[in-house]
Amino acid sequence: MKTRISAMLVLLVFFVSLGCKPQDPLPSWHDGNTKQAITDFVTKTTQKGAATYVPEKDRIAVFDNDGTLWSETPLYFQAFYIFDQIRIMAPQHPEWQNQEPFASVLRGDLESALAGGEKALIEMMMATHSGMSTDEFRASVSQWISSAKHPATGKLYTAMVFQPMLELMNYLRANGFTVYIVSGGGVDFMRAWTERVYGVAPPQVIGSRIATQFVMQGNTPVLMREPALEFVNDKGGKPVAIHHIIGQRPLMAFGNSDGDLAMLQWTSAGNGPRFAAIVHHTDNARESAYDRKSHVGKLDQALDLIEPNGWTRIDMKQDWKRVYPD
Amino acid sequence: MKTRISAMLVLLVFFVSLGCKPQDPLPSWHDGNTKQAITDFVTKTTQKGAATYVPEKDRIAVFDNDGTLWSETPLYFQAFYIFDQIRIMAPQHPEWQNQEPFASVLRGDLESALAGGEKALIEMMMATHSGMSTDEFRASVSQWISSAKHPATGKLYTAMVFQPMLELMNYLRANGFTVYIVSGGGVDFMRAWTERVYGVAPPQVIGSRIATQFVMQGNTPVLMREPALEFVNDKGGKPVAIHHIIGQRPLMAFGNSDGDLAMLQWTSAGNGPRFAAIVHHTDNARESAYDRKSHVGKLDQALDLIEPNGWTRIDMKQDWKRVYPD
Ligand SMILES: [Ca+2]
Ligand SMILES: [Ca+2]
Repeated sequence: MKTRISAMLVLLVFFVSLGCKPQDPLPSWHDGNTKQAITDFVTKTTQKGAATYVPEKDRIAVFDNDGTLWSETPLYFQAFYIFDQIRIMAPQHPEWQNQEPFASVLRGDLESALAGGEKALIEMMMATHSGMSTDEFRASVSQWISSAKHPATGKLYTAMVFQPMLELMNYLRANGFTVYIVSGGGVDFMRAWTERVYGVAPPQVIGSRIATQFVMQGNTPVLMREPALEFVNDKGGKPVAIHHIIGQRPLMAFGNSDGDLAMLQWTSAGNGPRFAAIVHHTDNARESAYDRKSHVGKLDQALDLIEPNGWTRIDMKQDWKRVYPD
Repeated sequence: MKTRISAMLVLLVFFVSLGCKPQDPLPSWHDGNTKQAITDFVTKTTQKGAATYVPEKDRIAVFDNDGTLWSETPLYFQAFYIFDQIRIMAPQHPEWQNQEPFASVLRGDLESALAGGEKALIEMMMATHSGMSTDEFRASVSQWISSAKHPATGKLYTAMVFQPMLELMNYLRANGFTVYIVSGGGVDFMRAWTERVYGVAPPQVIGSRIATQFVMQGNTPVLMREPALEFVNDKGGKPVAIHHIIGQRPLMAFGNSDGDLAMLQWTSAGNGPRFAAIVHHTDNARESAYDRKSHVGKLDQALDLIEPNGWTRIDMKQDWKRVYPD
């Protein structure tokens, strides 16, 4: 009898310990150097008493968005918002029928619309992103993002976020990190959906922005979006914006292109342990493969600097079990 | 025997309830309408189930700094930093001996130094606030704030913060609010000490700023402060910066001058319960009395708008038991 009770106790302890075994916080990541580098860094900065321990208030992780948290091919998704808005706004702008680059968009010829380069793109952006209040713009983006579909995949754009990166952000937050987005995308464009999709609230979203003016419309104060690009959150602008807005140097930084190089340099030059990683698009079967010669997310100079800086290359094909949420 | 036990129980309950009586979270505030308005608002926005309940993530309170959280007479304290730095830097700038407004500062004639108005002030600001890295600037401010004394009171500047407002910020944080500073002062000037003095960490500090450039000095990335005022966080700039940086409309706003009017209008125009208050300097005995005609913290238009808007006037003399911490 005593033996049977002892055996049952052993079994009980066995099952309890099974039940208590910590679940893998990064199930969509293959085991290997990349995953290990991430979890090692989190362990050593969060273990009380460790020489590399970092208090919670300094656990700041910054993530680029396009190409780092969601896809960016064949064009940055915000560009599709621009084109869709031009179509929606066309009845109020009969002149667009004969005016480039708008005429090309209305004919469905995006290649010709983009032939005018940055000047044409900014003209289309200003036509669709300004001349309304901040509340009106957010409502417009919210409506678009909840229904518009990607032309190649047919998915909602928010279904083209990277499942492994969602897990990574959750894992970091569970370990006391504050997760920021630091993206070249428009800050108000992103804030319309980042909290729902990524769990990143408006105060933790940093992006490019257009000029905004405080105006009293009768007794109602309004913030009006003006047709002028005020700040481009790319390259050297990223550490500058991190400094202006966060005011602390990040502990971890994640990007995918040369536009993130300065942010990674600024992050990893801090004292004590720092972590910097680049998502490398290597997976033509499940997503895309591109780097040095791409017109979106060009990764050239930063690719060569991964090894000398001891940064981590996240190889989409090798490191991720899956790309998108199901 | 039974009676004695009952009596003891009654006594016990009495003492336990004494011990559990909630301490006044605002002991430096006189009881009255102002204090009541603040605690009523916090109660109704934090009581679960109330129609006026606001979730924690939306409990954002914004505070002006100069004149709202610390004194600002006879000059904004950051101006004293400028004058002290001019004296410290003078040996490296022999030309300042004969060049206004610097020569006047070096002669100790601040009135003449300020006679040149805004142009002279900006010239002195750029000479002392730019041409160094962000790290160097913060170190300089940290050193200054830990030792410099106010010319009239002989106190450390950080001893001239308002004790009732320290209690108010703690009270709000204890009730799930995130407290931001939204000030015309320089953002990096404030960040050097706001966490230690107010408990407000760098990401919750919004201020004016000068242009900053990302520069690689050899292999070391540096953020260099350039001699150009990039953003003045005053008047309409305050709601604009709140929108760009926080991305949510505040629930509560506290200011003391016409420079805060737009921030208070923007805050109180939000849906649901909102709270806006103005610190009115009415106490020449303990601090200062000034409003419509003051050259610092001018309170004129906003003073007339308190009543029609249902805002709260914090009367320093009437509402505060004490002004500074002991
Ligand atoms: Ca990117
Ligand atoms: Ca003020």
